[in-house]
Amino acid sequence: MTYVYAFDHEHGQAPMTLKDLLGGKGANLAEMTSVLDLPVPPGFTISTEACRAYMHGGWPEGLDDEVATHRKTLESAMGKRLGDPSDPLLVSVRSGAKFSMPGMMDTVLNLGLNDESVEGLAKQTGDDRFAYDSYRRFIQMFAKIVLGVPGEEFEELLEGARKLSSARTDADIGAEVLAMVVRGFKGIVEAHTGAAFPQDPDVQLRAAIEAVFSSWNSPRANAYRSRERLSHDLGTAVNVQAMVFGNRGDDSGTGVGFTRDPSTGAKGAYGDFLINAQGEDVVAGTRTTQPLSDLKVHFPEIYDELMGIFDGLERHYRDMLDTEFTVESGKLWMLQTRVGKRTGAAALRMAVEMIDDPAIKLSKAEAVSRITADHLDSVLHPQFAPGPRTVLTKGLAASPGAAVGKAYFTADDAAAAAARGEQVVLVRNETSPEDIHGMAAAEGILTARGGLVSHAAVVARGWGKPAVCGAEQVRISGSSFAVGNVVVSEGEVISLDGTTGEVVLGAVALSAGHVPDELTTILAWADEIRAGHLAVRANADTGTDATRARAFGAEGIGLCRTEHMFLGDDRLPVVREMILAATPEAEAVALEKLRAAQKEDFLEVLEAMDGLPVTVRLLDPPLHEFLPDVEELAVKAATTGLSVDEVELLVAARWWREVNPMLGTRGVRLGVIKPGLYAMQVRALMEAAAERKAAGGTPVVEIMIPLTISREELALARGWVEVAIAEAASAGVPGTAVDVTIGTMIETPRAALLAAEVAEAADFFSFGTNDLTQMALGFSRDDIEGRIMGPYLEQGLLARNPFETIDRAGVGELVHMGASRGRSAKPGLKLGVCGEHGGDPESIELFFDAGLDYVSCSPYRVPIARLAAAQAVLGAGAGSGDTR
Amino acid sequence: MTYVYAFDHEHGQAPMTLKDLLGGKGANLAEMTSVLDLPVPPGFTISTEACRAYMHGGWPEGLDDEVATHRKTLESAMGKRLGDPSDPLLVSVRSGAKFSMPGMMDTVLNLGLNDESVEGLAKQTGDDRFAYDSYRRFIQMFAKIVLGVPGEEFEELLEGARKLSSARTDADIGAEVLAMVVRGFKGIVEAHTGAAFPQDPDVQLRAAIEAVFSSWNSPRANAYRSRERLSHDLGTAVNVQAMVFGNRGDDSGTGVGFTRDPSTGAKGAYGDFLINAQGEDVVAGTRTTQPLSDLKVHFPEIYDELMGIFDGLERHYRDMLDTEFTVESGKLWMLQTRVGKRTGAAALRMAVEMIDDPAIKLSKAEAVSRITADHLDSVLHPQFAPGPRTVLTKGLAASPGAAVGKAYFTADDAAAAAARGEQVVLVRNETSPEDIHGMAAAEGILTARGGLVSHAAVVARGWGKPAVCGAEQVRISGSSFAVGNVVVSEGEVISLDGTTGEVVLGAVALSAGHVPDELTTILAWADEIRAGHLAVRANADTGTDATRARAFGAEGIGLCRTEHMFLGDDRLPVVREMILAATPEAEAVALEKLRAAQKEDFLEVLEAMDGLPVTVRLLDPPLHEFLPDVEELAVKAATTGLSVDEVELLVAARWWREVNPMLGTRGVRLGVIKPGLYAMQVRALMEAAAERKAAGGTPVVEIMIPLTISREELALARGWVEVAIAEAASAGVPGTAVDVTIGTMIETPRAALLAAEVAEAADFFSFGTNDLTQMALGFSRDDIEGRIMGPYLEQGLLARNPFETIDRAGVGELVHMGASRGRSAKPGLKLGVCGEHGGDPESIELFFDAGLDYVSCSPYRVPIARLAAAQAVLGAGAGSGDTR
Repeated sequence: MTYVYAFDHEHGQAPMTLKDLLGGKGANLAEMTSVLDLPVPPGFTISTEACRAYMHGGWPEGLDDEVATHRKTLESAMGKRLGDPSDPLLVSVRSGAKFSMPGMMDTVLNLGLNDESVEGLAKQTGDDRFAYDSYRRFIQMFAKIVLGVPGEEFEELLEGARKLSSARTDADIGAEVLAMVVRGFKGIVEAHTGAAFPQDPDVQLRAAIEAVFSSWNSPRANAYRSRERLSHDLGTAVNVQAMVFGNRGDDSGTGVGFTRDPSTGAKGAYGDFLINAQGEDVVAGTRTTQPLSDLKVHFPEIYDELMGIFDGLERHYRDMLDTEFTVESGKLWMLQTRVGKRTGAAALRMAVEMIDDPAIKLSKAEAVSRITADHLDSVLHPQFAPGPRTVLTKGLAASPGAAVGKAYFTADDAAAAAARGEQVVLVRNETSPEDIHGMAAAEGILTARGGLVSHAAVVARGWGKPAVCGAEQVRISGSSFAVGNVVVSEGEVISLDGTTGEVVLGAVALSAGHVPDELTTILAWADEIRAGHLAVRANADTGTDATRARAFGAEGIGLCRTEHMFLGDDRLPVVREMILAATPEAEAVALEKLRAAQKEDFLEVLEAMDGLPVTVRLLDPPLHEFLPDVEELAVKAATTGLSVDEVELLVAARWWREVNPMLGTRGVRLGVIKPGLYAMQVRALMEAAAERKAAGGTPVVEIMIPLTISREELALARGWVEVAIAEAASAGVPGTAVDVTIGTMIETPRAALLAAEVAEAADFFSFGTNDLTQMALGFSRDDIEGRIMGPYLEQGLLARNPFETIDRAGVGELVHMGASRGRSAKPGLKLGVCGEHGGDPESIELFFDAGLDYVSCSPYRVPIARLAAAQAVLGAGAGSGDTR
Repeated sequence: MTYVYAFDHEHGQAPMTLKDLLGGKGANLAEMTSVLDLPVPPGFTISTEACRAYMHGGWPEGLDDEVATHRKTLESAMGKRLGDPSDPLLVSVRSGAKFSMPGMMDTVLNLGLNDESVEGLAKQTGDDRFAYDSYRRFIQMFAKIVLGVPGEEFEELLEGARKLSSARTDADIGAEVLAMVVRGFKGIVEAHTGAAFPQDPDVQLRAAIEAVFSSWNSPRANAYRSRERLSHDLGTAVNVQAMVFGNRGDDSGTGVGFTRDPSTGAKGAYGDFLINAQGEDVVAGTRTTQPLSDLKVHFPEIYDELMGIFDGLERHYRDMLDTEFTVESGKLWMLQTRVGKRTGAAALRMAVEMIDDPAIKLSKAEAVSRITADHLDSVLHPQFAPGPRTVLTKGLAASPGAAVGKAYFTADDAAAAAARGEQVVLVRNETSPEDIHGMAAAEGILTARGGLVSHAAVVARGWGKPAVCGAEQVRISGSSFAVGNVVVSEGEVISLDGTTGEVVLGAVALSAGHVPDELTTILAWADEIRAGHLAVRANADTGTDATRARAFGAEGIGLCRTEHMFLGDDRLPVVREMILAATPEAEAVALEKLRAAQKEDFLEVLEAMDGLPVTVRLLDPPLHEFLPDVEELAVKAATTGLSVDEVELLVAARWWREVNPMLGTRGVRLGVIKPGLYAMQVRALMEAAAERKAAGGTPVVEIMIPLTISREELALARGWVEVAIAEAASAGVPGTAVDVTIGTMIETPRAALLAAEVAEAADFFSFGTNDLTQMALGFSRDDIEGRIMGPYLEQGLLARNPFETIDRAGVGELVHMGASRGRSAKPGLKLGVCGEHGGDPESIELFFDAGLDYVSCSPYRVPIARLAAAQAVLGAGAGSGDTR
């Protein structure tokens, strides 16, 4: 077994492709050393295989020998020995897994120093202060990271040394004091571990390597991998590398450099450096760094060399790189490189510019693959500007973007405040259709309960308005809320980040969402790639939404919810009249009023989407949603008493109330017990379509039956629809007949299982993955996300929130099954999805694999869906942007 | 194509096996004619193929010719012609499908009569009155059944004729008056149809045949087939048979005879007959019939001949037969035979006796196959005694048996009345755990809402107490209920039949359930047959239930619901204390109290089931079920105000209240957020088991985790259980360690889909088909059964109530999938089912097919499950008893 590879090992293939074996850091170090021939301090990588062997059976047999061999090779290459009392070699030990991962041991520097070799270092460098400072840093890091000694005592002792020296910075602490600090540090270690600080470099090295291995299974690393769905079996590599020093005087320095600006994407090197400093000084921010361009002034030759290296790296990696470098006594060393993280705006600009860059020649497919959903979110929505902030609590990131406003606790108060010109955040336990005006008036929405597909979340995403939902720690009482001891009263300013779920006390500065021109270019390329494969539609219920969706590139409406049309102030009383109707005649009168209103709604939507398909879902929600709250009326009845109308409403509300409304009288079941309802809706729709056609438009109508469980049920409902269409046609203007298709949602597990039968009565299927998720997992979205989802994700019982990213193994199989069984019975069956998953990149990948024709999502998600659909077609996968 | 077969056609196989082609009636007529050589009036059968051809493409080509040919053969055999003015042949036309089916056209008699042939009949018989009476009967039947003329006008005219003749019975109406009736009847037909009554026998015959074909698709027949899950494609046969007359004088007669007593099963012929009468007179009950034994006195030779025929039939069919016969002028004719319907007691007695009958030699397997669930229900539970009764309304047949008692509307009132010695029926909108004492005190339970797996239904079945649930027409207000205009006040007597769902005003006489000895014999044979294939366990929560279940033959407990143990008066306050606990310490105190109580419960159950497995399900229901009603407390808060304790309860009830509790915080999810709960339960169980073992018992414990959705979740829960077991063991008496298996319910669709993974953490699966049904169909049992199930079954949208008989296509596939995937990962995985379907014969067949090891049902269903399990093993299928 080979466990250890020198950076210059001949792998027989590009080492950058061996991240599985060498980890990301090791692969890039080997690439720079063996392929690019860059000045990299020599070293070796202990592979992930060694880590895996360690996890299964303890310290691997033979590993000690391999490390010893490579150590010797390294020592002879450097002409120095670890622990040499006269001229010691020092090394760094760093972890490096395939994916960068918080929670793992990071770095031990200066390993190899001990009470003797520190003298050698002092002698060789002629710098006692440097030697003792290096030693105290090593002890401190090693003790904390490898030995698990808490850091506070070291800091206290160092603080004492600073005071003793009247030091302004640590550079003012002299060698003599630093030697005392070293003695103190060793004492701390001995007190905590019961043993002296290890002097043998072999012992130091092995302990550091083992600490890296162990940190793979730290709770934080485990939680991170569970959250990111990374395998727990990968293991990490360990990189051992000769130390070079940027703090050897004014001909030394260290820096971080990007090959392009990671914020804007602008061409040209970008970064920071410090003269006479170590890497940690750059990161810690204790000294003010200089821009990279200043390097030209201080070290013109080094600067030119670095720029040449940057050019070579970009040409080689065909991407923007993030590097760390050190100048030791006038010599440049490259310590690390990786593909650089970038903002959304930068990602877009670089992807487009690299197509034209003759050194890189990116293809359109590659350019599209490099953009993530987060990149788009950040350019489409305002964000918290960088800077410190105190997070009050965190909820679910329910609708992206950031908002600042005064807290109000009822929809009426919020609307009134907005009317006075205030910026408002609406804070509610949960929202309901009655809160719509307050939500419309608010900059952002915060709810204490409810999850990613709660009313608040769905409406907010539909409007592109930031929302944080299910913030369980928020306890609302009257016109204030508390998080722990902090109380926020009405009118106090809070800030929300719907992209992260953060709730902040006070106003946070926002960076406005700015849509760069490159977005249009990238999305046009994405559209080219996915054309004929996966269309993107929007969920839109009004003409306004439909217009917006079309502007975002939607190719139709996949879900027009007709119930939202029932909730207007002018509609709700008529809906209640229909529900309360004592006779079929009274019901018919109410339905007739609704018909006229619905027709106007449909006209707007069809006009906005002229020429593109509009899928209209017939009424779906349980009727009690249109009735007032039972408890409220019951309390009123017991106190002030009810009017005659209210008594009637209370009786109806009680009658229609259900124990589990999600599994109750809704969807096509409403049609079965109130067939006039669906006939009315179809009639209104057909009249609107005929009117559009008469006016020269091209309405494309798809009528969708919700909550089907059987072929017989769908056939019955299809019958009503066909009769209503025929009646409308026979009553309509000649020559304005409109082609209509009739299909169903697949949102019960039974419908997915029986898809072959159901398909016989359907022209199309639209997977309702929200309800499918609720029923497959037994997860009520209204109840589970707040109370249960947190513990389930934290404990790894579910890899992802299944309302955010489709549950592949369960719900995903139902989608696959429904699609293949449906098509087996009817090969041309059109298939789509209109749940919230329609806008989620990973879910879109699954929908593409299942053979769906389109996804439908809220208008603001359309750009992301277009991108993700193209990436699915490319097989690039949504999760490929891991290093960016 | 051959469409028509004479009764003596040579089929090349026993015609009784050709019911698919000839229908039941035709097959038996051919069997009697061609195989048994019995005196059957000749005739022919138009096959079901002709009917199918008719349904697809109208009157089949060639059918007229075939009918004409067979008619001629019949005429020459009888030496008479249809419509012959001097000596006419008359025929009957009857439908006869494979399965007997209400709603189809039944019989037209005397076809072939017209204005001329009636005279020939009169001349030949020398009986003018007989001839005209026959003609008016024919017109009346033909008009009503074939031509669709309403019957009332005929009855009115006949009533006039009776008055005119001062007739006591129709026999007193003379020939002259009957001739006038005939003219009148023809006038009615002409007025209604616009055409004269058809005189041509060809036209009459074709119209009658077509009417039979058409009646196959009558709404009633369609609904019946949907309900009974019979194919709509079968079609019916039509039998055309020469008429014989039992009303030709005192040497004629007609009767119905059974080869054994269908009520008791006693050997020896049983039946009724009438001298000088037609078959319809026997059925109509207008004349008092004589017992069949009297035939011996009147027609000794005929009697002997008939008894010989009965013996031959039993020997041939190897079962009890139901026959119709006619004596015409001293000659015996057999008109029909079929395997006879029978009571439960008779079925059991006959099945056992026919084993020893040398003429029949039934096998044990055949004997077991002939008993149905309905047979057992009728001997295990009291029933309404035969006799007239006025049904007030019908609800769901929720728990079999009948009950009579005074109506009470609250559990307290019912319990108080029972304490005073009254017989009580508890009437509620629905029941909840708080009604338990009233339910226990009642003879029967009637609910206006809720379905077959509602609380009332499940509890009633568990106790073997009659219940009618979801009687939607019942409107309760205060201490009375109304059905339409009928009001039933507190204390008024009503009767319930939980086997049929009937609710009757007043007291109906009951026939007590009587368990015949043969039941034990049959069930013992059933046990032999199913041994090693499918075990039967019971759902039982208490020692009493477990003892009863064991007496009924249960081989263990498949579901011991621990929540029922939480509901006692002494437990509920402690449960609330646990829920309300502000600190972990307070929670621990409450849990400790519950542990002591639970241990006692477990001791009783384990003792009752000593040596047999007991599956204990850890707490499953949402916690709000243990808290008071929010609305009630809110109203109280707004009116009289709340105590401090009540305020705390209201806050908790609000906090735990859920929008869809079925899909909320329940099952293993409770364990995730309150891990101490499950540890407490396991500890109590293990202590009880150890105590049982120390006392010399053999406890067999299976611990079941409810509502699992993933392997990770089950593995976590398994971990808690294992830790609790280990802790109990380490604290326990040495040498009392008990073997325990740990498994899970499969009740979410996801768990069924991911069964291979879930199996890795499970020793057994128990399918929770109630919840699986709710989630697969999106059917909340509390909401759907009352409002939706009725319309769905009536309109054929669902073939069966899926809470009663498992939905094969949907839920059934999930069970199959769960079983096969689970076993693919763990071949020895034990599989059972503990939903209400565990006691349903058709569902048991599916469970056997899916490879389950056991079913579990309420104690009173155990005998039926034992029988059905044996029938499943025999492959006889649960639905095979169609003719009995």
